[in-house]
Amino acid sequence: MTMSSASPENVYLDNNATTRCDPDVVAAMLPFFTEQFGNASSMHAFGAEVGNAIGTARRALADLLGAEFDHEIVYTGGGTEADSTAILSALETQTGRNEIVTSAVEHPAVLTLVAHLEKTGRAKVHVIPVDAKGRLDMDAYRKALSERTAIVSIMWANNETGTIFPVEKLAEMAHGVGALFHTDAVQAVGKIPMDLKSTQIDMLSLSGHKLHGPKGIGALYVRKGVRLRPLIRGGHQERGRRAGTENAPAIIGLGKAAALAAAHMAEEQTRVKALRDRLEKGLLQRISHSFVTGDVDNRLPNTCNIAFEYIEGEAILLLMNREGIAASSGSACTSGSLEPSHVLRAMNVPYTAAHGAIRFSFSRENGDADVDRVIEAMPPIIERLRDMSPFWREREVRTAAFNPTYA
Amino acid sequence: MTMSSASPENVYLDNNATTRCDPDVVAAMLPFFTEQFGNASSMHAFGAEVGNAIGTARRALADLLGAEFDHEIVYTGGGTEADSTAILSALETQTGRNEIVTSAVEHPAVLTLVAHLEKTGRAKVHVIPVDAKGRLDMDAYRKALSERTAIVSIMWANNETGTIFPVEKLAEMAHGVGALFHTDAVQAVGKIPMDLKSTQIDMLSLSGHKLHGPKGIGALYVRKGVRLRPLIRGGHQERGRRAGTENAPAIIGLGKAAALAAAHMAEEQTRVKALRDRLEKGLLQRISHSFVTGDVDNRLPNTCNIAFEYIEGEAILLLMNREGIAASSGSACTSGSLEPSHVLRAMNVPYTAAHGAIRFSFSRENGDADVDRVIEAMPPIIERLRDMSPFWREREVRTAAFNPTYA
Repeated sequence: MTMSSASPENVYLDNNATTRCDPDVVAAMLPFFTEQFGNASSMHAFGAEVGNAIGTARRALADLLGAEFDHEIVYTGGGTEADSTAILSALETQTGRNEIVTSAVEHPAVLTLVAHLEKTGRAKVHVIPVDAKGRLDMDAYRKALSERTAIVSIMWANNETGTIFPVEKLAEMAHGVGALFHTDAVQAVGKIPMDLKSTQIDMLSLSGHKLHGPKGIGALYVRKGVRLRPLIRGGHQERGRRAGTENAPAIIGLGKAAALAAAHMAEEQTRVKALRDRLEKGLLQRISHSFVTGDVDNRLPNTCNIAFEYIEGEAILLLMNREGIAASSGSACTSGSLEPSHVLRAMNVPYTAAHGAIRFSFSRENGDADVDRVIEAMPPIIERLRDMSPFWREREVRTAAFNPTYA
Repeated sequence: MTMSSASPENVYLDNNATTRCDPDVVAAMLPFFTEQFGNASSMHAFGAEVGNAIGTARRALADLLGAEFDHEIVYTGGGTEADSTAILSALETQTGRNEIVTSAVEHPAVLTLVAHLEKTGRAKVHVIPVDAKGRLDMDAYRKALSERTAIVSIMWANNETGTIFPVEKLAEMAHGVGALFHTDAVQAVGKIPMDLKSTQIDMLSLSGHKLHGPKGIGALYVRKGVRLRPLIRGGHQERGRRAGTENAPAIIGLGKAAALAAAHMAEEQTRVKALRDRLEKGLLQRISHSFVTGDVDNRLPNTCNIAFEYIEGEAILLLMNREGIAASSGSACTSGSLEPSHVLRAMNVPYTAAHGAIRFSFSRENGDADVDRVIEAMPPIIERLRDMSPFWREREVRTAAFNPTYA
């Protein structure tokens, strides 16, 4: 693979995997590497000036979330650490409760952890199914909740399909049985408006690099009054809730990214959505036996996941890559695997379709030219792969017995 | 505090708290924020080129440590996370063993964790004392080791005094009873030569920002064959040993920092040591009732910790800060506390001296002018504070009954 991502003619539609760090974010970070480089916990001026800048950044992030208090933000090394912190903390603080309720379509950061907790006898886990559109089975959710539930962890929006979950309602229901409610909002933060202070959400995870901020920084929102047991113990940083020298440049970069996301929110909700919708329509019109997965009426504005039946997603990506187009099949965190996405399997998307699902994810940096390029490039790629696919030929022999209901 | 750390006339001698990120490190990182910004786990070229750069950086860090295999390096969000990962993992993998052996002078990243583990009944902890020079009590260490020891965690060099521990010997002794040996080498890596492949050290923690690399990145060396249970579970990154999107810019920055540290090692061992020794001599000559703490004959070349008797370290730092000189009392991670340093207390440094201890820590960026400035600035600061100190006046009334044996 010799394509350089820096080439202007390339098309990057894999923003749910990671986003380009905004040049304004880099500019905000730069002085804190080589000029104001002090340890924020130090007593001298080198440290104090860094501490002040971190305070400003914390406020910007709290504002993006609609958090009431700055100190409800606890910085972490990323979204995964934030998820682990929330779930493991609840098992310790929720005395007499050892059950976890989650969904079948969570990110591996949640599913791998809770599977480990169940396997080692530390928790009983209820995995709530979703329907064919990826929507949570609300009856199953209601039945899973009990006075044994320590914590509910259900994502705000799915990383593969963009499907949005009714987290405010889910949080209220969790509180109805005295459980804590945590949401992995890594894909939602910065893309849709939030006002946490008007919800009952107790904890929320986010990641800097999903909203044009730096990698290696995330945060756990912890509502004032909710007890937190640290995952990483040591020094007194973050009010004793997460030890380790403050990652000042990244915290300040995330603050800038949060401010930029807030400023661009309206655009992300309209212009980016229009780009996404035009791509989707263009591809479905030009390519037969393709359909959109997820809840098309209730999705992140930047995400579409299209199943191209009877071919392999990895092969599609390879040919797209040759055309300078980046997208995903499944999530990057599980790539390399040939298993179809656990998200699409949970939605009962047929095997022959789930294997050929491609996620296109936009950001505010995408434009009309990107959509034009992809609409032009994809039909010959799909046609070429189907010509080589035994499943496709087999399908042509049979009378079209299978008629998906997802589109 | 209005002093700007960017002013050239300031003197920064707090490099054990954090170092300035080397401009060459920043230059190495920059393209990975806005150009090669892909997710290293992605299947497309945007990701693949990042994966290659991470491989090169991993090799550079492995080389600095003298590690045999690149994949013995597991990246973390910092030194504290690396310490927690090592210790918690050992309690899980060392079946039938639940004891931890550590020293009284460890960083809070270790001491706070093991205290929590003991308090919650998950481990029995042996805290080995040190002598007046900060040297480990080898008899007590030998007696603490047993077939119940899961892991020994003893630092390579102390952050406050620079005292170096005989980690190679300690590791051999730990292996003698079948225990794992971990060392927090956050202060030692990049300052003194290491050749891990020729030792029996099983795990080693390090932190990027202590060697002119970025904050928010660290690593745990895990010798090939040593089992590791991840602290943070989720995606398959780092061969399943630490989940979360790779912090590519910081990993690449740390690789550059490691290469620079290797190139500067000889200088750090000689020129920096000469600066440190000149400062120490100059201050002890000019200021009475002051002495060096720690093992003066076996220290990091960059560190000196001087106790100025009968005054408060925080007050000294405040006046130093007004002169544009940054140093530390205790470690930054516990600053804000008025308790004397746990390290100096463990060494039985008298209360009236431990309170007035100042750590000066050099880096390759310091020069002769820094030493001249501090030698000139300190005597009037100490004199002024002693004039106001009731302890100092009381001492003058008594016949000099106390005569420290530390110098």
